[in-house]
Amino acid sequence: MRLSAYFMPTLKETPAEAEIVSHRLMLRAGMVRQASAGIYSWLPLGFRVLKKIEQIVREEQDRAGAQEVLMPTIQSADLWRQSGRYDAYGAEMLRIEDRHGRDMLYGPTNEELITDIFRTSVRSYRDLPRMLYHIQWKFRDEVRPRFGVMRGREFLMKDNYSFDLDYEGAKKSYNKMFVSYLRTFARLGLQAIPMAADTGPIGGDLSHEFIILADTGESEVFCHGDILDFDGLGEGIDYQSDLEPVVQAWTKLYARTDDKHDPAVFEREVPAEKRVQRRGIEVGHIFYFGTTYSEPLKALVATPEDESVAVHMGSYGIGVSRLVGAVIEASHDEAGIIWPEAVAPFKVGLINLKVAAADCSKACEEIYAKLQEAGVEVLYDDRDERAGAKFAEMDLIGLPWQLVVGPRSLDKGLVELKRRAGGQREEVSLETALARLTG
Amino acid sequence: MRLSAYFMPTLKETPAEAEIVSHRLMLRAGMVRQASAGIYSWLPLGFRVLKKIEQIVREEQDRAGAQEVLMPTIQSADLWRQSGRYDAYGAEMLRIEDRHGRDMLYGPTNEELITDIFRTSVRSYRDLPRMLYHIQWKFRDEVRPRFGVMRGREFLMKDNYSFDLDYEGAKKSYNKMFVSYLRTFARLGLQAIPMAADTGPIGGDLSHEFIILADTGESEVFCHGDILDFDGLGEGIDYQSDLEPVVQAWTKLYARTDDKHDPAVFEREVPAEKRVQRRGIEVGHIFYFGTTYSEPLKALVATPEDESVAVHMGSYGIGVSRLVGAVIEASHDEAGIIWPEAVAPFKVGLINLKVAAADCSKACEEIYAKLQEAGVEVLYDDRDERAGAKFAEMDLIGLPWQLVVGPRSLDKGLVELKRRAGGQREEVSLETALARLTG
Repeated sequence: MRLSAYFMPTLKETPAEAEIVSHRLMLRAGMVRQASAGIYSWLPLGFRVLKKIEQIVREEQDRAGAQEVLMPTIQSADLWRQSGRYDAYGAEMLRIEDRHGRDMLYGPTNEELITDIFRTSVRSYRDLPRMLYHIQWKFRDEVRPRFGVMRGREFLMKDNYSFDLDYEGAKKSYNKMFVSYLRTFARLGLQAIPMAADTGPIGGDLSHEFIILADTGESEVFCHGDILDFDGLGEGIDYQSDLEPVVQAWTKLYARTDDKHDPAVFEREVPAEKRVQRRGIEVGHIFYFGTTYSEPLKALVATPEDESVAVHMGSYGIGVSRLVGAVIEASHDEAGIIWPEAVAPFKVGLINLKVAAADCSKACEEIYAKLQEAGVEVLYDDRDERAGAKFAEMDLIGLPWQLVVGPRSLDKGLVELKRRAGGQREEVSLETALARLTG
Repeated sequence: MRLSAYFMPTLKETPAEAEIVSHRLMLRAGMVRQASAGIYSWLPLGFRVLKKIEQIVREEQDRAGAQEVLMPTIQSADLWRQSGRYDAYGAEMLRIEDRHGRDMLYGPTNEELITDIFRTSVRSYRDLPRMLYHIQWKFRDEVRPRFGVMRGREFLMKDNYSFDLDYEGAKKSYNKMFVSYLRTFARLGLQAIPMAADTGPIGGDLSHEFIILADTGESEVFCHGDILDFDGLGEGIDYQSDLEPVVQAWTKLYARTDDKHDPAVFEREVPAEKRVQRRGIEVGHIFYFGTTYSEPLKALVATPEDESVAVHMGSYGIGVSRLVGAVIEASHDEAGIIWPEAVAPFKVGLINLKVAAADCSKACEEIYAKLQEAGVEVLYDDRDERAGAKFAEMDLIGLPWQLVVGPRSLDKGLVELKRRAGGQREEVSLETALARLTG
């Protein structure tokens, strides 16, 4: 993409309303624009990151055996009355009356609707287990939306729902998602720690939040410091195998959100020098809640003994749009964003230092064409701007690599290759630069 | 995907509420499930088709030089008051009050919001032209939603907005979208005819609808029969070239929707034997509307002479979710859907006629593995069901190819390969079948 033709309205000034760094940088880099309080439009640069995160989340859901569906944003209030949550949910639920006076709502979550789909389709244990997920916009009418996409009102969430015959089956599904979440966050370049958590309005008695440690986090978390050294999970997970040992390994040390925190247990179980008390950002939340919804909504299946029982369910959420902000909170410096390669909007920023010089522009066009041919995503700054402004903007938007073409180096057949993370610069030949970036 | 593990709740009975064939077949094939009036959940099979159509639409937008953004579903009423459409839009607009009593709405279209994004970001002719699109759910509160996803209330639409300095520029953008639409529909296996159309609530004075002829279409259309023989556009379009001759060629013959139809002109311009009067389904609609929104919303840019002028705009919609139904309306038979290969949920249905027979299952597993290795999307019917039921279900869901493995043929080293379109069957060796499907 040529920057001269790209819609990337960066801001020179730091917007006054942005309290945290991810919000500031997303506005400054022209990734998002506020449409109204807590509601954002995603501009091309931000949209690319959102889509990459979404795709990684999707691939890891599929790999774990979940199947993708898509439920609508607008739901009828009737189902929520059956589950008892219509009144219980409170003012955060955006309630709507349609033209015929029917009570509707903008889904803040989908337990009711997926249970309805399940109950009209599945009758027998033979069709279990099932995991169905979707990636859809949700709305929660926060009193005071803030922190940009980190606590917006309209937000993109992946929510998965598991259906099993009994607790043992449901625990297997829970474990699959537990492991799948570790893999997902590791692929995003994030260290997310599973912590025992309260179940809140979803209900149930088994729940973990996946937390990224960051000073700007919304809640306090407590854990054993050794967990911070645990490795993410590699490619080699077999989801058909028994995952309980993996889950045990990750949950045997103390790690709890503030709702679940117990100072006495913390001090008993964790040696003083290992006690970590930090702020954290929730990027995922998994629940087992048994028959909380299947009973009132009568989602029943026949057992092998031909008894009719309420299906055991769990739900598993990842805040996809929130993750864009979370990645930035975890990876930035004074100059701007530092994208992990897996979610970077482009891999390479190609900077033409002197557009008016024929040799510079010719070299840049060649590099641009060769990178594109090799399938490397490149943003080419072909604008007639000062070098300083170009460097600052490229640092701000945080692409993993910068390839700088200027007249002086080019005379010697060299270009400059800069790694955004760390800032190392190297003068190399054009061929070396291309080999590194396409390798 | 193994059918035994796939969530595809087909229906034996034809649902009474479905008036048209696409609605009936989508419900019967387990593609969608109604959530409430005019609002649908997309189940795995339907979701795959929706995503494939979305991706083709996206690729053709990108190719034409448009850039993808994503605007939210919920908008503030303020902008719509500025454009004057808040009161004008009527009861089809889903109006919402948030917890602070602010007037919001579920976007039925996005002219106002994209104009707001533009006006706060672009100031100069140097940054023109721009085409920004998104693929997002919209809501129109139809009095009487019907025909399934063809006239639902919550629907997925691609809407693109162009920004140019003047009419000449805007006409070029219009032409790009005109050509891009021809390519898009051709890739979807659809013959869509551009017809001069009324501009309706969007406003403006230049507009074409892209219409698929079908007896179940919602409106009457009139055209010169020769247009039906026009070829779709091949790969070789250069969007930087002058597209006016292409547009002229496609618009010189009479083709109008009922709003624009003039019987006198029709009879004068079209010889009696060439007059086509049919019903049609609108799958795309393009508009040039000049400064209708940029003037009230003050989206101004500086000209080369440093004058400030309202930007010239157009908007360009494709009904993505509606297209799923439209493709079925255009391609089905008594037995079910016949998917064009480009949008088929899977390319091949592999039918194991005797799951209990070890050789059948062994052969199927091998074929299944080989097809997946070759990147062919295959749905493997590994269930212990009657052959008749398997055939009927595979015909119903309409995958382009069926590969049937039964004990009698297998003894001779043969399998049956069936083309869903046309129904030709052939007994061929396993190797031949694989070569055909992976070639």
